[in-house]
Amino acid sequence: MTVFELNTDRIKDNILALATIIDEDKPGYTRRPFTKWHTQSREWLMNEMKNSGLDVSIDVASNLIGKREGKNPELPPIMIGSHTDSVVGGGRFDGIIGVLAGIEIARQLNEKDVQLAHTLLVVDFTGEEASEFGISTIGSRGMVGNLTQEDLNRTNGDGLVLRDALASVGGRPEDLATESLRPGDLSLYAELHIEQGPVLEQTNHELGVVTGIVGIQRHKVIVEGQANHAGTTPMNMRFDALTTASEIVLAIEKVANEEYAEQVVGTVGRLFVEPNGANVVPGSVIFEFEVRSLDLQALDQMIEKIQREIAEVEKRRTVSITMNQLSHADSIIVDEEIVQLIEESCETVGTTHRLPSGAGHDGNQLAKIAPVGMIFVPSQEGKSHCAEEWTDFELIAKGVQALGNTIIRFDQRV
Amino acid sequence: MTVFELNTDRIKDNILALATIIDEDKPGYTRRPFTKWHTQSREWLMNEMKNSGLDVSIDVASNLIGKREGKNPELPPIMIGSHTDSVVGGGRFDGIIGVLAGIEIARQLNEKDVQLAHTLLVVDFTGEEASEFGISTIGSRGMVGNLTQEDLNRTNGDGLVLRDALASVGGRPEDLATESLRPGDLSLYAELHIEQGPVLEQTNHELGVVTGIVGIQRHKVIVEGQANHAGTTPMNMRFDALTTASEIVLAIEKVANEEYAEQVVGTVGRLFVEPNGANVVPGSVIFEFEVRSLDLQALDQMIEKIQREIAEVEKRRTVSITMNQLSHADSIIVDEEIVQLIEESCETVGTTHRLPSGAGHDGNQLAKIAPVGMIFVPSQEGKSHCAEEWTDFELIAKGVQALGNTIIRFDQRV
Repeated sequence: MTVFELNTDRIKDNILALATIIDEDKPGYTRRPFTKWHTQSREWLMNEMKNSGLDVSIDVASNLIGKREGKNPELPPIMIGSHTDSVVGGGRFDGIIGVLAGIEIARQLNEKDVQLAHTLLVVDFTGEEASEFGISTIGSRGMVGNLTQEDLNRTNGDGLVLRDALASVGGRPEDLATESLRPGDLSLYAELHIEQGPVLEQTNHELGVVTGIVGIQRHKVIVEGQANHAGTTPMNMRFDALTTASEIVLAIEKVANEEYAEQVVGTVGRLFVEPNGANVVPGSVIFEFEVRSLDLQALDQMIEKIQREIAEVEKRRTVSITMNQLSHADSIIVDEEIVQLIEESCETVGTTHRLPSGAGHDGNQLAKIAPVGMIFVPSQEGKSHCAEEWTDFELIAKGVQALGNTIIRFDQRV
Repeated sequence: MTVFELNTDRIKDNILALATIIDEDKPGYTRRPFTKWHTQSREWLMNEMKNSGLDVSIDVASNLIGKREGKNPELPPIMIGSHTDSVVGGGRFDGIIGVLAGIEIARQLNEKDVQLAHTLLVVDFTGEEASEFGISTIGSRGMVGNLTQEDLNRTNGDGLVLRDALASVGGRPEDLATESLRPGDLSLYAELHIEQGPVLEQTNHELGVVTGIVGIQRHKVIVEGQANHAGTTPMNMRFDALTTASEIVLAIEKVANEEYAEQVVGTVGRLFVEPNGANVVPGSVIFEFEVRSLDLQALDQMIEKIQREIAEVEKRRTVSITMNQLSHADSIIVDEEIVQLIEESCETVGTTHRLPSGAGHDGNQLAKIAPVGMIFVPSQEGKSHCAEEWTDFELIAKGVQALGNTIIRFDQRV
């Protein structure tokens, strides 16, 4: 067997079946981790896995794993995974198609009685999306030994402790330290995911080869001017925090539009004005911005430029501006060898385009222990995390086919 | 009698006495209309008025009026007034010094047994500040016949109807239509007030001659871009409502900094971002701006320029921008003759500067029926409507003296 079949109907049926196991009291297609809907979807997935010839188990971090033994037990397994939890009000595709892709690949191997050299693991990770515990990618963090005791002691809004939440769905938090995976334990981690952005659609490509997952720096900026009466304060006696902040917002956009070694983005998403009264010159503005790129040096260059712009505005407008880093995450770079292998696999299936992932994934965690690779399929209008999230079923089927071909090529390469 | 005495101690004692009659459960010096603190301060004021030889009554619109008969009953009275209600968390001077100035002037006339040609009316207007009924200058509106039936039917947060509120403090809302003042009923309306802005302090002047009260246009702007994932949406595929709005905020500032026939100001005081998430390109921004000037034509010119800037930004950024007028108020121009008379009266007392009032006052209403004039005293750091609101007592006494001199000059002029 060298090429996977395109089976649009089967992947469509699977997606639509899973889309019925949702919390109907919430908007969109909501399936939060550690809820009864997650448990029900796990039962459905377990059944599908078993019918596809997979041996099913729950790992130490509560991830659902289906296993198909390989011919060569010496080789570390290949893992295909994603998640079936969604954000509140989320869609039917984000994460879900990656897990179903793994099952479909196992199903075809089973139907054709093909045994790979590598053992194949198909994983549904627990709680990939941002959670009420204040962290995301819970299951994949646990799998690679990246859940600290502090993390395990986190509580959600209902007072539930993450440790207990994991145990309630079959995890063994007490064994995380000893049983998590280490570098060398996997040959490859591969994932199919929706793009969550507009690039493939706008550039007319069916498949995306992910070159890496961008690094992120988040910063908070506080502009302190002076709140004054908007009628009685002449223009030349003002210290307007909002006009000052507006200059910085535009400076961040300008900096993000400049050329760097790798593509970058810069965004002010969140901004608050004080006192925010129609007849008051704004006294202070607080906003948060983030910059993302595969190239961490480009991020540092951006921050430096933004700081220079801020210093200039601060001096010219005689206001006080402080900027503090809130968080940062390193980027993941996919090995060029893996990129090429995936690209070749995709090109036999459809039009293909290389691009970075601007969003984080379980792959961020798996990259700590294994080579990772990802395939994207287009998101209609770039929408995700909403009920309107959509990818044509045929494109998803092509993504599954490309991922299957990738696994075979990788398996045969060794 | 041609010149008023400077009596700093007496005005200081009066201000400090009134500053004790406040709602202590609220911040600053809070005295809202139609509360027991307003009633208590009215009792205190009535007593002071009587001790100053004034005949006390409550008019049809519930304003407290102290009357000193003039020699010539043919002449329409001169009115001095202001208000003793404050905003929640307000200060000890805004409005209050104007009422106390009227009483002090009556007191000195009484002490020296001077009878003016004109009858003198000293007024404490009810509810000048923005109220829970959704309107301001309630008492002065009522006095000049500018409270509509719709206004009288307005309710506050507790379900109290304005009509009943007025009746509860001695007003006769049913007689408003017949008993309100008409053009010709007063010879002059004069008011002493704190500047509420930084101009006198910054230009080192003790007294301000108000040349008029600015007109205001308020507009609401809605910028509709596209909310997108801040990581996965490349810069060149964005329709960012916040960077768009930032350009407009700066354009409004630029337009307000240009030259016009009269001084202008332009302010974006209130701005909301949607969805306002750290990792989401803003989808929409709603903000309100206002422009103020004595010259209504300048306001129209500003709005036209702002509209042109908006049209340019809208086209360049391919977003949708709507702009709607929320309200407008015409400006009040003080007769040059009155300005000169006040200016001469002020110059005998202290350093004097002409300036427009950027805020509204009871004078906006009185101007509908009579010539108006106002004197400003400096506000420390331009602050008002807060507990820190401050004017040195000696400067207030100078303001009282200048206002008294104005009344005498006006009275003798005729």
